[in-house]
Amino acid sequence: MGEATIKAKLAKKASAELARLSTREKDKVLEKMAQVLIDKWESIVEENIKDLDMAKKNGKSEAFIDRLMLNQDRVLAMAKGLRSLINLNDPVGETIGGWIRPNGMEISQIRVPLGLVGIIYESRPNVTADGIGLCIKTGNAVILRGGSDAINSNSIIADLMSQAAYEAGLAEGSIQLVKDTDRSSVLELTKLNGIVDVLIPRGGPGLIKAIVENSSVPVIETGAGNCHVYVDGQCDHKMALDIVVNAKVNRPGVCNAAETLLIDREIAPSLLPDLASALIEKGVELRGCPETLKYLKDIKPASEEDWDEEYLSLIMAVKVVDGIDQAIDHINRHGTGHSEAIVTSNYNNAKTFSDRVDAAAVYVNVSTRFTDGDEYGFGAEIGISTQKLHARGPMGLKELTTYKYIVRGTGQIR
Amino acid sequence: MGEATIKAKLAKKASAELARLSTREKDKVLEKMAQVLIDKWESIVEENIKDLDMAKKNGKSEAFIDRLMLNQDRVLAMAKGLRSLINLNDPVGETIGGWIRPNGMEISQIRVPLGLVGIIYESRPNVTADGIGLCIKTGNAVILRGGSDAINSNSIIADLMSQAAYEAGLAEGSIQLVKDTDRSSVLELTKLNGIVDVLIPRGGPGLIKAIVENSSVPVIETGAGNCHVYVDGQCDHKMALDIVVNAKVNRPGVCNAAETLLIDREIAPSLLPDLASALIEKGVELRGCPETLKYLKDIKPASEEDWDEEYLSLIMAVKVVDGIDQAIDHINRHGTGHSEAIVTSNYNNAKTFSDRVDAAAVYVNVSTRFTDGDEYGFGAEIGISTQKLHARGPMGLKELTTYKYIVRGTGQIR
Repeated sequence: MGEATIKAKLAKKASAELARLSTREKDKVLEKMAQVLIDKWESIVEENIKDLDMAKKNGKSEAFIDRLMLNQDRVLAMAKGLRSLINLNDPVGETIGGWIRPNGMEISQIRVPLGLVGIIYESRPNVTADGIGLCIKTGNAVILRGGSDAINSNSIIADLMSQAAYEAGLAEGSIQLVKDTDRSSVLELTKLNGIVDVLIPRGGPGLIKAIVENSSVPVIETGAGNCHVYVDGQCDHKMALDIVVNAKVNRPGVCNAAETLLIDREIAPSLLPDLASALIEKGVELRGCPETLKYLKDIKPASEEDWDEEYLSLIMAVKVVDGIDQAIDHINRHGTGHSEAIVTSNYNNAKTFSDRVDAAAVYVNVSTRFTDGDEYGFGAEIGISTQKLHARGPMGLKELTTYKYIVRGTGQIR
Repeated sequence: MGEATIKAKLAKKASAELARLSTREKDKVLEKMAQVLIDKWESIVEENIKDLDMAKKNGKSEAFIDRLMLNQDRVLAMAKGLRSLINLNDPVGETIGGWIRPNGMEISQIRVPLGLVGIIYESRPNVTADGIGLCIKTGNAVILRGGSDAINSNSIIADLMSQAAYEAGLAEGSIQLVKDTDRSSVLELTKLNGIVDVLIPRGGPGLIKAIVENSSVPVIETGAGNCHVYVDGQCDHKMALDIVVNAKVNRPGVCNAAETLLIDREIAPSLLPDLASALIEKGVELRGCPETLKYLKDIKPASEEDWDEEYLSLIMAVKVVDGIDQAIDHINRHGTGHSEAIVTSNYNNAKTFSDRVDAAAVYVNVSTRFTDGDEYGFGAEIGISTQKLHARGPMGLKELTTYKYIVRGTGQIR
């Protein structure tokens, strides 16, 4: 039995007790965990330096090192994140529905924790604190498996938080970090049916694909976002400029950033040059379809692969389409079901786009960048689901729960 | 590319059009499909005879042959099942929630079809008609893969129904039956990520285990039911007798039948002999823990394995427990999270049992036999989920849907 299995079993055992904690008890644990991060920020930063040194030695990129790096501000932000959970509604115990059957039995559908949540992630140490906080708030035990690059940072964060949590009354074993960073420990987690109730991978497409393909434990697939903005023939030009630029350049490295611009043939001659100038001015490299190249002489042609690429950088593919039907077909063929936007002033096209685009989030005259738990008002986010089962789009506290039916009667038999 | 892949792609393609049908259009399709089963019942029975002949030649059991067998009544019952769907509410299009964010953007969470549902089953030909009906009502395309034993029956049912459906206006390709009954076609379906949106296995534990372990497509696990009735120290004796006997003998071959009786030590001397007589009178074989054997001299001892066994027959394990805590521990250790019942007149024990038993359905003074879509008032059932993700317990039409967010704005950017 590997470390992951041993720790998962301990966490599963603790989960029954954890599920019964009141909101007040869980909030007390969250406060203690926030406090320990504040008190010990220097020790955390010290451990983080070990990870940073190793990353530099291994020649990791600047972006990588930035994701890995912790300083006082970033540790305090983690504590603030935990405290913000205290103010959120506890979804556990909510009566989702209830009715009485003709034979007199009373059925209630009650929201309960999932049990044991597994989170598999890469080099962002803040996921350790976020993941623990979200699971504790929802009454779930948690097993974390972070990447080897952040092992020192993750270890101290998980150790400090679980110590503080147990002192505040949490069942021992509820919080587990797998310290074996060999790939085999990930594989081990994916096979723990009946122990781990759900696995949430957070990271790059390679990690997510490996887990989806190998896991017999239910997985919530997150992340991949090949998002489009379609600029309709009838639209406010200024709004189109604002939304396209925002969706592409506001934060190009995240999953809700736009990768492809689709534009109606009707409006391409008048609007495409302005759109291109605005994007190029912000440092965006454009790659166009043959028709786009007629209007934009100086850009690269797009290859077939470009339509499926999630650049996650300042590159944007551009395609001129023959109206809304072609736009929707393109999106439903090449999109990843994440976030899709239309800019239009035409009622019918707004409705057609909303109805027919198959994605977690469909935007009418809004930037794709809003697909986010905070922006939706959830207060917290465990990830953005790109699958259709259980949860779709931003996942908050509710999405970390399931339900059970409680049926009360007076001796009903069949 | 195997048959399963080719057919799944056709169905996925059709699913976009199917998702847009109105309730009236879908109900018209259901009516035509019901009518063709009624009109052609004799042809269906003729094809079924081929399957029955083969099953007899292969020495299949009587129970197996009964599950496989179709006659006029059973075909008409399938048609009736389809017609009953017409009267149910269409969950597609329901607004689950909606709110306006401080920046003015309006978020709506709208129920939509899953897309393409795969159903993998064994030798019950009625699953073919039920599965098609449930998927069409919920706007999903469907790909069916039934067992080789029922291939002639399944083929004619699927062919007749899809022909009738297309004549009534359903997009061609929406209904697919994989006629290759080699195991490889099941494996093929489990790898069609991005094409098949969910797989629902219906059948024995071997089939379900194989699919859960191999599938990278999200699966809804159904079926396994090691269900318990706990008879508390304080209870109505007559009610305890009625519920235990009903839970065990009403239909022992189904997943919501009870397999183990737990009884509080306090009440065992006075109640256990009566319970045993009532069960034995109905032909039940009892297997008891050492303490049970003190009260029931003539029954077999239970082995450790008995606590984990889903007998699906007239056998029941019996264990004397030291009050409610031990009963709950036993259930949470050995149960499959399906249906668990307590018989009690003690308020605190009723509450403790409801709160702490980790199962899809927890019953207080009601037989476990009620875990069923019809009994819950869903009108139709695609299966009973024993996992926690997406759906738990009886799954009706709603559980064959997902949701999407539609966000309407006036140019919001971040």
